[in-house]
Amino acid sequence: MKTLRELAALLPGAELRNADQADSIQIQSIRPLAYDGKDFLSFVTGKGYVQAGGASKAAALLVTAEFASQLSKPLIVVPVVEAALAQALRVFFPERKPDGQISPHAVVHSSAKVGKNTSLGHFVTVGANSVIGNDCIIEDGVKIGEDVVIGDNARIGMNCTFSYGTRIGKNFTVFGNSTFGGDGFGFYFANGIHNKIPQVGNVLIGDNVEIGANCTVDRGALQDTIVKDGCKFDNMVHIAHNCNVGKNVIIAGQSGLAGSTTLGDNVIVGGATAIADHLIVPDGTIVAGGTLIRNSPKEKGVYAGTEGLSFGDFQKMRANIKHLVGFNKWASRIKALEKKAGITAEE
Amino acid sequence: MKTLRELAALLPGAELRNADQADSIQIQSIRPLAYDGKDFLSFVTGKGYVQAGGASKAAALLVTAEFASQLSKPLIVVPVVEAALAQALRVFFPERKPDGQISPHAVVHSSAKVGKNTSLGHFVTVGANSVIGNDCIIEDGVKIGEDVVIGDNARIGMNCTFSYGTRIGKNFTVFGNSTFGGDGFGFYFANGIHNKIPQVGNVLIGDNVEIGANCTVDRGALQDTIVKDGCKFDNMVHIAHNCNVGKNVIIAGQSGLAGSTTLGDNVIVGGATAIADHLIVPDGTIVAGGTLIRNSPKEKGVYAGTEGLSFGDFQKMRANIKHLVGFNKWASRIKALEKKAGITAEE
Amino acid sequence: MKTLRELAALLPGAELRNADQADSIQIQSIRPLAYDGKDFLSFVTGKGYVQAGGASKAAALLVTAEFASQLSKPLIVVPVVEAALAQALRVFFPERKPDGQISPHAVVHSSAKVGKNTSLGHFVTVGANSVIGNDCIIEDGVKIGEDVVIGDNARIGMNCTFSYGTRIGKNFTVFGNSTFGGDGFGFYFANGIHNKIPQVGNVLIGDNVEIGANCTVDRGALQDTIVKDGCKFDNMVHIAHNCNVGKNVIIAGQSGLAGSTTLGDNVIVGGATAIADHLIVPDGTIVAGGTLIRNSPKEKGVYAGTEGLSFGDFQKMRANIKHLVGFNKWASRIKALEKKAGITAEE
Repeated sequence: MKTLRELAALLPGAELRNADQADSIQIQSIRPLAYDGKDFLSFVTGKGYVQAGGASKAAALLVTAEFASQLSKPLIVVPVVEAALAQALRVFFPERKPDGQISPHAVVHSSAKVGKNTSLGHFVTVGANSVIGNDCIIEDGVKIGEDVVIGDNARIGMNCTFSYGTRIGKNFTVFGNSTFGGDGFGFYFANGIHNKIPQVGNVLIGDNVEIGANCTVDRGALQDTIVKDGCKFDNMVHIAHNCNVGKNVIIAGQSGLAGSTTLGDNVIVGGATAIADHLIVPDGTIVAGGTLIRNSPKEKGVYAGTEGLSFGDFQKMRANIKHLVGFNKWASRIKALEKKAGITAEE
Repeated sequence: MKTLRELAALLPGAELRNADQADSIQIQSIRPLAYDGKDFLSFVTGKGYVQAGGASKAAALLVTAEFASQLSKPLIVVPVVEAALAQALRVFFPERKPDGQISPHAVVHSSAKVGKNTSLGHFVTVGANSVIGNDCIIEDGVKIGEDVVIGDNARIGMNCTFSYGTRIGKNFTVFGNSTFGGDGFGFYFANGIHNKIPQVGNVLIGDNVEIGANCTVDRGALQDTIVKDGCKFDNMVHIAHNCNVGKNVIIAGQSGLAGSTTLGDNVIVGGATAIADHLIVPDGTIVAGGTLIRNSPKEKGVYAGTEGLSFGDFQKMRANIKHLVGFNKWASRIKALEKKAGITAEE
Repeated sequence: MKTLRELAALLPGAELRNADQADSIQIQSIRPLAYDGKDFLSFVTGKGYVQAGGASKAAALLVTAEFASQLSKPLIVVPVVEAALAQALRVFFPERKPDGQISPHAVVHSSAKVGKNTSLGHFVTVGANSVIGNDCIIEDGVKIGEDVVIGDNARIGMNCTFSYGTRIGKNFTVFGNSTFGGDGFGFYFANGIHNKIPQVGNVLIGDNVEIGANCTVDRGALQDTIVKDGCKFDNMVHIAHNCNVGKNVIIAGQSGLAGSTTLGDNVIVGGATAIADHLIVPDGTIVAGGTLIRNSPKEKGVYAGTEGLSFGDFQKMRANIKHLVGFNKWASRIKALEKKAGITAEE
């Protein structure tokens, strides 16, 4: 619990407004605007939330100067609401820190190196020649093969697996049951069967990457599969062999890249989206959720739909759906016109 | 092995018919109608299966009174075929029961509580302050973090993971490699990078829930992610942060809900279906397999297709597909009409 | 490192060409044509790559006789480029072999049998009555339940799980966190809830099967779920209960089969594809990526798109997309024709 004044003092650039009672307003938690409780802080992230902000039971609101004058509640006026929210959440829910404990039930190969202040959970394994950085939390059941490098300050969720040769930068986060470094999917057909092409590349992940639960990143065939700095992937994201994912790429849940596809920097991919193999997606492209991309987009833009249309065309298509659903009526009208015009069309 | 009479006696409300030989008919197993063997029981679940029932090599059939008179085979006439089938299967394949053994290779924190008659497999971990109910089977390799609650009579498949704070009701079943309580996918873009918003909600799962293999249920951002009583999820189902899944919801394989979406009670979601974020799906709605739902359905109904159409419109669309595939011919016909009418249309 | 002559000598049926310097050309690695380095071997797999082959910095190329005369570089002329590539890769990256070590941290039930020269990693479990063949590598954290059979020469990735009764043939490969033998998804609705139908079949996998990371193969309801010899599945592939997958079937990433579906031999399924339940897909059928198959294809063919069209129709549909996106313009043209013709159509 903090007073509103104490909390505001912890947020860079924050100013109190409508807050004469800032020393007596108690903040016990942070909640959505609609929360049915008391003593909580909430937040207004844009014009569309000002009215709900006024009506909220929140004891106080985080808001930018732009909307502050429209609200009579106690306010903490901040430069960026989401940044202040993240900071305020850390006041009430401090980040878990490594305690430097190595479980007696972890097995670390004698040639492996584990950094200072890194925690290894129960039933963790670290294979030969692998190197784990400082200040990491490696949760229970994580399996790290040979010749793996994981940088400082990693947070590795339970039962994740890292096959030999995987290399990961600093500040990596991943949730449970994700798999790194399985073989890429490469076969050739001969003599009536599918024959394996050895997959000898590795997985190379940059700094500040966060990956969700039950994701897979395959090793490359001849070169490495690359995920660059700052990428954030949701759950069940699949990155196939030889992909090259640019900096700060976002990929939402259950989406995947087929082999050898390149995403430029700052691409955003919605959920339940599939991007075919050997494509190049330009920097800054946005792919909506539920999209199928079968060809490389010619230019940066927003793409949507199972035909991978530009967003404008996708909207037009949706506006025309009622016509397409009932196209048989249009067909009848065309036939009636033909009959009246005395045209005999080929069916 | 049971005689037909012995088996019928174990099924509530069952009556033998055409079964003078009920003491000498041996039932060794339960099989589909088309099974090519002998001494097996099969079943007729509706009108469409009566003929196959008559032709089956089954020694006897489970059937309701409605169809019994159409069959001359030995029958066990029952109120609900599926219920009788489930009961009969348990005669031949008794449910596995916990044996109350705690593997010497499990690690249970001194502050955790494990209920009576609960089995913990090898390499299971139970973290600080967690509470596991009575009569549970926790299979090998399951990892349970801190402050987790799992109710009585759970069946937890191998290598599932439960992050801190996850709370699960009674009679929970889950299969291997599912992940509970990974962080929700929440970032804000500032200073050229994606910055994390701490995810401080938990996962809250009701009673009598069954979840498949390799599923993920993320913790909420500020509130809990909720899965209510009686839900059944197939494999690779993804439930994002803040979702609220109503009672008795069915979700088939490889389907997912994006963040903050609410499903009403008794919703049924087919496989390979994606439901976008912040939607509300009414009680009793049915979403067919392979559907994309981008907007909240206005009313209970059946929805289908990548445009999220009502089922009626979806059927119309499919009936019109041949026209849409060959629309260029219709375009030519329209142009021919324009030519004859002396209309010059803008292309 | 090998000389070009040494390397060629290791490849069956290989002949050197343009290779007077074969004893002094050093090959240190194998890379794609576009690789920016030196001392590497590359390969030309078809007409479309001949020009890039000529321009490559590769020290030598693998190529068939068909294209050899168009290239002046040092060549290794081989019968099948991909086969020679696979063999050459194994020269530089020898396959990992089992060392026959059983980790002291593995738990093998006293009634289980582990074959000769098989390696069991740390925190592996093998349940009662299970049988693991010879020459297998069972990586760290794999959990094998009761009555499981795994044939000779398996490669089981970290943290995979095998529930009771699963039977797998020879030369099986699977990558991390895949789950075999979870219950099929079978319920009936009665008394206002979904009631479970016991799933008493097993999982039966043939010889020479490779399965990716984070896949699921469910046990059958009454019969076994079957995956036949020579199948190759990519990551996050889901095979539901009672499916019967023919020989040498390819399924790419994030695709799934709903329950009781049969795929014929040599079927190829692209990524992000869903095939509905109770279908039969003919031998040799190809299903493109991003396809929804809702009905059994009547004949062998190539199918594509969210309407499961024949590939020809799919291509026509795509060619017509511009018309469908802008259908409102066609509607206006039809209305203009009607006006001029004095027809009043029903809207």
